[in-house]
Amino acid sequence: MTDRTHDPALRSWVDSANEPGADFPIQNLPFATFLTGAGPHVGVAIGDRILDATAALGVPSLQSVMAMPKAGRLDLRHRISDYLVTRRTGAESHLSPLAGSRLLLPCMIGDYTDFYASIHHATNVGSMFRPDNPLLPNYKWLPVGYHGRASSIVLSGTPIRRPSGQIAEFPAGPPVFGPSRRLDYELELGAFIGPGNALGRPIPIAEAADHVVGVCLLNDWSARDIQTWEYQPLGPFLAKNFATSISPWVVTAEALEPFRRAPEPRPANDPQPLPHLQSPTADAYDITLEVWLRSARMPAPMRVSHTSFRAMYWTLAQMVAHHTSSGCSFRPGDLIGSGTVSGPLKENRGCLLEVTWRGAEPLELPTGEIRRFLEDGDEVILRGRCEAPGVRPIGLGECRGTIAS
Amino acid sequence: MTDRTHDPALRSWVDSANEPGADFPIQNLPFATFLTGAGPHVGVAIGDRILDATAALGVPSLQSVMAMPKAGRLDLRHRISDYLVTRRTGAESHLSPLAGSRLLLPCMIGDYTDFYASIHHATNVGSMFRPDNPLLPNYKWLPVGYHGRASSIVLSGTPIRRPSGQIAEFPAGPPVFGPSRRLDYELELGAFIGPGNALGRPIPIAEAADHVVGVCLLNDWSARDIQTWEYQPLGPFLAKNFATSISPWVVTAEALEPFRRAPEPRPANDPQPLPHLQSPTADAYDITLEVWLRSARMPAPMRVSHTSFRAMYWTLAQMVAHHTSSGCSFRPGDLIGSGTVSGPLKENRGCLLEVTWRGAEPLELPTGEIRRFLEDGDEVILRGRCEAPGVRPIGLGECRGTIAS
Repeated sequence: MTDRTHDPALRSWVDSANEPGADFPIQNLPFATFLTGAGPHVGVAIGDRILDATAALGVPSLQSVMAMPKAGRLDLRHRISDYLVTRRTGAESHLSPLAGSRLLLPCMIGDYTDFYASIHHATNVGSMFRPDNPLLPNYKWLPVGYHGRASSIVLSGTPIRRPSGQIAEFPAGPPVFGPSRRLDYELELGAFIGPGNALGRPIPIAEAADHVVGVCLLNDWSARDIQTWEYQPLGPFLAKNFATSISPWVVTAEALEPFRRAPEPRPANDPQPLPHLQSPTADAYDITLEVWLRSARMPAPMRVSHTSFRAMYWTLAQMVAHHTSSGCSFRPGDLIGSGTVSGPLKENRGCLLEVTWRGAEPLELPTGEIRRFLEDGDEVILRGRCEAPGVRPIGLGECRGTIAS
Repeated sequence: MTDRTHDPALRSWVDSANEPGADFPIQNLPFATFLTGAGPHVGVAIGDRILDATAALGVPSLQSVMAMPKAGRLDLRHRISDYLVTRRTGAESHLSPLAGSRLLLPCMIGDYTDFYASIHHATNVGSMFRPDNPLLPNYKWLPVGYHGRASSIVLSGTPIRRPSGQIAEFPAGPPVFGPSRRLDYELELGAFIGPGNALGRPIPIAEAADHVVGVCLLNDWSARDIQTWEYQPLGPFLAKNFATSISPWVVTAEALEPFRRAPEPRPANDPQPLPHLQSPTADAYDITLEVWLRSARMPAPMRVSHTSFRAMYWTLAQMVAHHTSSGCSFRPGDLIGSGTVSGPLKENRGCLLEVTWRGAEPLELPTGEIRRFLEDGDEVILRGRCEAPGVRPIGLGECRGTIAS
């Protein structure tokens, strides 16, 4: 279902959008919310510029876009694409430089849910804590997830304060209260949900993909020492709720369409999903995701890992169908996190816990510094990009955060 | 710190407020949001009437009350008390009958967190699943909690649709998908939080009680069979997120002041809380809570259990201090649930899982019907009331829900 908005020959009158390697060519058109003199407006990234879609096209808010049905979002994409392909008189007045724009959280996030959908991550982490039994029996039957904290979702660039909490040296305690010494990042993809469903009315799997408005990069900052002590029996709590960073740009499902693929096949001995989680269409996305790290002493960041979102065991559509199968409601602008995106290889590991194997295999930085977990002043940068033969590549931008003490 | 608004001799010009046994005498003054011809207004219950506090006293919204500092809430209480003690010309025009009022959710609940703060409940449930080790090592060191779902919080009286989900007969699976057969209620107290804190700025324990605006009754509906299969390793998810019912009235901390007590002393061998959880004041509340059950064939409900909120192992103030100790932020109107309120005796058990001991000791209803878990058509009614010598009793009202198939 690619359409003319994906044509790789399509060019914008905004020159910077046509440069090779641009994250935001005319084929992307991601949304953000940004502050103008007239208040928060909807922005669309084009090259190194931001189009004021509220002023130029009357889009009232990104929340209103989240509430649109799939057909409305597609229609809006066509209108924006036309606007940026065919120059109109005065159109430039609705553009401003991306650099220096004051970006805000995309919308009011009513509820945030975090999943655990990479079997490579779950197996790695599980094997550290339960060597004989890394994957629990439910893992291959349902996308494991838990409710997260919406109030502490912050925009890329917000400093991340190292949390304090109860930490126990031994499994039986006693704990002491102090700053986390095992602070970690988690490379995730976030997905904004719309238009959602009424309470008690599950979203069928065949319609679930249409409720994914778009994606962003998400860093699920995690305090491993706090998590170890607190998480039984009801799951992670303070270890995760001190901050979750997201990138400002919502790259739409419509923009991702040329990068939609069948999920990687399940191993032959794995169970097939139950009918309510069997997707009738190819609903995985081939998105390359990277983690970069820069200590305060490094002049430039180093790439720590890279992986593909296609390697996830569960797709976003399956997460949506599962999440609502109880009757739970999604509201427009709700956010889900995919869980740490790790792949099968060592260079595909999406968090330091895996990269350094709980600290047993420390990471050496170009400065000679050693990292088991994050130190004050470390900056973590997540990046995402989609490439495919015959298609104009698009980027997700960046999600950045620096650890403050 | 009781003041003249608690004087048991105080009477309102609204006669029904002065009747013995009234839930809403002049000493209570709980808030709700209700629908008027001019939109949602703030209501204050007085006897069998509701005062339009928006029209009478200019209170814009209950959300604005949640955002007030403690001193502002106390001042507002005095203004409302005066208004209902001393009759002014035309004041009756701001009253309407409670019966027939269209009550709404009190405010926009940004985030909802559910705790697990009754050691009796935790011990009972733990001993069913881990007979040798019912309480995990962290239990006596911190109030265990997890993030819940805000989108599925519904008002008392909303029908509760029986959820479907994955259910496994054996711990290793395989699961089948179908309606829950082990649907349960949980008797909890809810607490609305305000004004809250900025991200990264914990609320010290000495200030934590001032951030509890007031309480309501809360039914944390739970599907035990879905929970058993899904909850490892990240906690309850679909087993809880299909619905959470709350009573409409926010009984303020100021109204509860005469019922504030020291918590029950901890057993001698239990650890004392770490300093950041040691409350300098008596911050438990003596609130009697009851569960009533009515099957479709019963003409009237029967009382299933009764308990006191004072028996909780952790206080609301300790929950607030713990929740923010990581730096996590509360926003005005956030809700926390206490966890199932059970006491030491069999008649104090706050959910059917405990009452029937997983179904092993079924409950017999006056009709001869048997209950292990909830059946379609069953109505669950939570009630709450505060009584103390020399003090006018106040009520929390009711939280009702009927199971629909």
